[in-house]
Amino acid sequence: MPKVAVILSGCGVFDGTEIHEAVSLLIHLSRAGAVYECFAPDVMQAHVVNHLTHKPAETERRNVLVESARIARGAIKPLDQLEVTKFDAAFFPGGFGAAKNLCDFAFKGAECGVEPNVDRIVRAFHAAGKPVGLCCIAPVIAARVLGTGKGGPGVTVTIGNDAGTAEAIRAMGSKHQERAVTQACVDPAQRIVTAPAYMYDAPVHAVYEGIGAMVESVLGMIGKR
Amino acid sequence: MPKVAVILSGCGVFDGTEIHEAVSLLIHLSRAGAVYECFAPDVMQAHVVNHLTHKPAETERRNVLVESARIARGAIKPLDQLEVTKFDAAFFPGGFGAAKNLCDFAFKGAECGVEPNVDRIVRAFHAAGKPVGLCCIAPVIAARVLGTGKGGPGVTVTIGNDAGTAEAIRAMGSKHQERAVTQACVDPAQRIVTAPAYMYDAPVHAVYEGIGAMVESVLGMIGKR
Repeated sequence: MPKVAVILSGCGVFDGTEIHEAVSLLIHLSRAGAVYECFAPDVMQAHVVNHLTHKPAETERRNVLVESARIARGAIKPLDQLEVTKFDAAFFPGGFGAAKNLCDFAFKGAECGVEPNVDRIVRAFHAAGKPVGLCCIAPVIAARVLGTGKGGPGVTVTIGNDAGTAEAIRAMGSKHQERAVTQACVDPAQRIVTAPAYMYDAPVHAVYEGIGAMVESVLGMIGKR
Repeated sequence: MPKVAVILSGCGVFDGTEIHEAVSLLIHLSRAGAVYECFAPDVMQAHVVNHLTHKPAETERRNVLVESARIARGAIKPLDQLEVTKFDAAFFPGGFGAAKNLCDFAFKGAECGVEPNVDRIVRAFHAAGKPVGLCCIAPVIAARVLGTGKGGPGVTVTIGNDAGTAEAIRAMGSKHQERAVTQACVDPAQRIVTAPAYMYDAPVHAVYEGIGAMVESVLGMIGKR
C-alpha cells in the first residue's frame, strides 16, 4: 500500500486549509488504499479570519498545527517530524492557508518566502523522484521552490485560469497550464501534479472529482520512472 | 431540484461538526443536484477542545455559527432564520457538536435538553412530512425530540452498534437498529433516515459511502408519501 503525507495549513478556506479539498483528498486516498499521515507546521497562523464576516479577527491568534488537527481528527504530527524516506508521495491541499501559512504568496506574490520545513520537504520529495500533488493555490509553493528563480528546473502547474496567479507562476520561473476544475495538470519530468479545485467557483462535487484526478495521477507515478 | 437545509454545530469532531461527515454530505448533495443551504445556531460552543491534545482549552470561547462558517465557506445563516417551508428536507451531520451544542446529550444522556431552534426545526420538518437525515451521534436529537418521552411517536434510528447510546435512545422512547458503517437506517413512517458514520472507527471512504446511502434515501422520499 502506498504511504503518503498530507500537509495541512490550518482549518478553513480564508486562513487555513480549504476543508472541502482536504476531505476530498482523504476520501480519494482512503478509497485507493493509500495510507496517509497528516502533518502541519507548528507555527502561528498569519492571522485568523472570521469566516462569517470574512474579516480578520484582530485580537485572536491560532496555531496552524492545532487547527489542522480538526481536519485530521487529532491524528497529526508537526511538519518537522516528516521523514521523507518513509513516504512515497506528498499532497498539499489548498485554501488561503497554503498561501499565508506555508508560504506568504498571498501577501508577497512572486517574491514570496516559503516556510522552511515546507521548502525542505518539497525539495526532498522532488530530489528523491517522489511525486507531489498540490491543488487550488498550493501549486504556487512548487512553482516557487522548484522555479528557476530559486535555481530549480521550473515546474509546470495549473491554478485553473486566474491570469494574475498564472503570471506570478511564470515570474517565479515555472510554467502555467490552464485546466478545468475536474482536470489535473501533470508534469511527468518533475513529478508534480496539480488541480485547480476552488480556484474556480465550482460546486463541491466537481472539486472532489478534480482532486480525484490529481490523486490518481500521483498514485500512478509511485514506483515508476 | 430539491432544496435542503444542512444544520452544522461548529467545526471539528470533538467540539463541533465532524468535518469529514459534513463534507461527505455536501459532496453527495451536490452530485445529486440538490441545492443546499447551511445553518447553525448563533450560540457559544459548550467548550473548545484542542484537537491536538484532545483537552478542553479552558480560556477559549468560540461561537457555533462563526466556526460552522469554516465548513460552509462563509455561506451560512443563523439557525433562527431557517424557514421550513422553503426546504424539502434537512440534514444533521455528526461530531460531538451535535451532542454538545445542538443538544446536551454528551453531558446528560437520555435526560438531555435540545437547543430551542433545533427542537423547532426537527418538529416542523416532521410535522410537514419532510424527511430528515442525521448521522453519527446526531440521531439522538431525533430520538429525543420525537421520542415518546417528549410525547412524540418515537422514531427508529441507528448509531451503529454502541450499546450505551442505543440504550439511551430506548430510554428517550425511540428505537435503535444496528447498521454497518456503509448502511443507512430508514424509518419510512416518521421519514427519519440515519447512518452510523464515525460512530465506528472506520476509514473515511466508508463513512462517505454510508452518508451517500443516507442522502439517497432522504432525497428519494421527497415529494412521495
